[in-house]
Amino acid sequence: MNADATSNRRILLAAHPKGLPARQDFRLDTQPVPVPADGQVLLRTLHLSLDPYMRNLMDEIGPGYAPPVALGEPMVGGTVSRIVASRNPGFHEGQLVLANAGWQDYALSDGSDLRLLDGMAQPSLALGGLGMPGFTAYVGLLDIGQPRPGETVVVAAATGAVGAVVGQLARLKGARVVGIAGGADKCRYAVEALGFDACLDRREGQLHERLAAACPNGIDVYFENVGGAVLDAVLPLLNLGARVPVCGFIAHYNQAPSSPRQDLRPQLLATVLQKRVRMQGFIILDHYADRFEKFRRDMEQWLAEGRVKLREDRVEGLEQAPAAFVGLLEGRNFGKLIVDVAPAG
Amino acid sequence: MNADATSNRRILLAAHPKGLPARQDFRLDTQPVPVPADGQVLLRTLHLSLDPYMRNLMDEIGPGYAPPVALGEPMVGGTVSRIVASRNPGFHEGQLVLANAGWQDYALSDGSDLRLLDGMAQPSLALGGLGMPGFTAYVGLLDIGQPRPGETVVVAAATGAVGAVVGQLARLKGARVVGIAGGADKCRYAVEALGFDACLDRREGQLHERLAAACPNGIDVYFENVGGAVLDAVLPLLNLGARVPVCGFIAHYNQAPSSPRQDLRPQLLATVLQKRVRMQGFIILDHYADRFEKFRRDMEQWLAEGRVKLREDRVEGLEQAPAAFVGLLEGRNFGKLIVDVAPAG
Repeated sequence: MNADATSNRRILLAAHPKGLPARQDFRLDTQPVPVPADGQVLLRTLHLSLDPYMRNLMDEIGPGYAPPVALGEPMVGGTVSRIVASRNPGFHEGQLVLANAGWQDYALSDGSDLRLLDGMAQPSLALGGLGMPGFTAYVGLLDIGQPRPGETVVVAAATGAVGAVVGQLARLKGARVVGIAGGADKCRYAVEALGFDACLDRREGQLHERLAAACPNGIDVYFENVGGAVLDAVLPLLNLGARVPVCGFIAHYNQAPSSPRQDLRPQLLATVLQKRVRMQGFIILDHYADRFEKFRRDMEQWLAEGRVKLREDRVEGLEQAPAAFVGLLEGRNFGKLIVDVAPAG
Repeated sequence: MNADATSNRRILLAAHPKGLPARQDFRLDTQPVPVPADGQVLLRTLHLSLDPYMRNLMDEIGPGYAPPVALGEPMVGGTVSRIVASRNPGFHEGQLVLANAGWQDYALSDGSDLRLLDGMAQPSLALGGLGMPGFTAYVGLLDIGQPRPGETVVVAAATGAVGAVVGQLARLKGARVVGIAGGADKCRYAVEALGFDACLDRREGQLHERLAAACPNGIDVYFENVGGAVLDAVLPLLNLGARVPVCGFIAHYNQAPSSPRQDLRPQLLATVLQKRVRMQGFIILDHYADRFEKFRRDMEQWLAEGRVKLREDRVEGLEQAPAAFVGLLEGRNFGKLIVDVAPAG
């Protein structure tokens, strides 16, 4: 199942998906393991992160903040990788690094995008709660959402890599937290393990009514990561001066561009006006230079104190990545989705 | 044409409009002039302000920031009024005040909502550039939009009471200003009299293409006061980190709630995300306590220095208010719309 030391399995973008990606939008190929040139290192992928933003990079026209994946090229992605050969004086064989090796067994790097992970008890957390998704939650909630004690924070995908951290940080700041998740087991976990005040199953009907009941004092911060029906339910409940950090819209990523439904833009704008809402988009790539070290110190402390819990959903084998990724877009993962590509030991 | 001293003409809300208000949505009646009780003053309306927000108050369900006008009650509105009788020790007969007397010849007030205007060279400016519309431009542009020198600011309704001030303040801050207005005469005025760098006639086709040509460096601040087709044209041109103060949507006020067009909300949200846009609604009523005095000092100085110009569109006679108001919603006014209800002398 894992690659041998001479071949590099790669999962390529075979076609631009129409809506939800299908099996044939990906193609597995096998190449010789690449050979590092002077200044390069050869990386062996141990863990591959699967994240919703990757869907945006599969379209012909990219989202602007990162170049789209070209047809026939490997899918991109963050990885925990081991350096198995180095011709770069800054690195040596055996080191564990955070890398952007993509959906493949091996990759080359000039070292500029690598971060050393040696000594981490659980290196895969560098792809989740201690990495991009956790950082996304931190910047979006704390810098943009700015929850105050006693305020109500709503977050969807509540047990996902971002949402679970959003909710726990909001609780740490003294806010009341209402999650939305897909399924009773996830909702139970959000309340019992993560400490959310309430969590609603989005698969049941009457989301707006149930959300209104769960937020008797309205909503002060809505961490927007799904769009669609959740946003529909949230908008009428926003309080004066509500903040809406906009992180993504997993519900829209697979929508045809002109789904026939009424135009909801005027109602969104009217809410922004009448409730004096501040809605602010952010792309986490912008914030590493300023905020990442502070985030990492804070999050390591909260983890050590047991005040933040992180759950991973691990999938075995690179060849499982496409199906696992489609499951992520459908909300079938339970926790941060990680593909174990090679044994970490 | 003007009322005598014993009768009070009032323009009442007769019906909730469907779309654009029609003549029969208003009704003129005549009542005896009211008599002030102890603590009250009797106000004679000299100038009545007509403003787009009034359309929102004609609906059965109000916009939230102010109560809707009840059927059979006088339309509300800011006025410049003369105190013609006083049983309030804080006021005396003959004083000129800014009031909320509404669409009628006479009104009573307990004095709590009055502001003395004695000594103002042109009191009607208290309804325009030195009043609510000018203050709306000031707070929205300077506090939320925060234009920096060299940035590009776009504002629609460019010769209107708010837009004209937005553009001139943006120029004062060193920004490049592109207006959008209805008609060649207004566009010429915006450039030649108000100093806009460019102004586009929204009645001509291909607004997006012309706006793109007029904004070769993209758009950093879009002062949102119209919505609709202008917003469609603006969104693809927003720069990274653009700010969108949201003041209103005159283009939507008369739209049926479910006009059959594609859902533009996902595209709006995608732009907010990809361009890291900060979109923030504001209601000017919130800001008087903190910012009005500073605004008034700044604006009086800019007016005295000739750095801001204000244009009024005056209509004679209270009975003309309904038609003038419909014209405002259709963009037929040219400058701040004021109804002269009684001679100021």
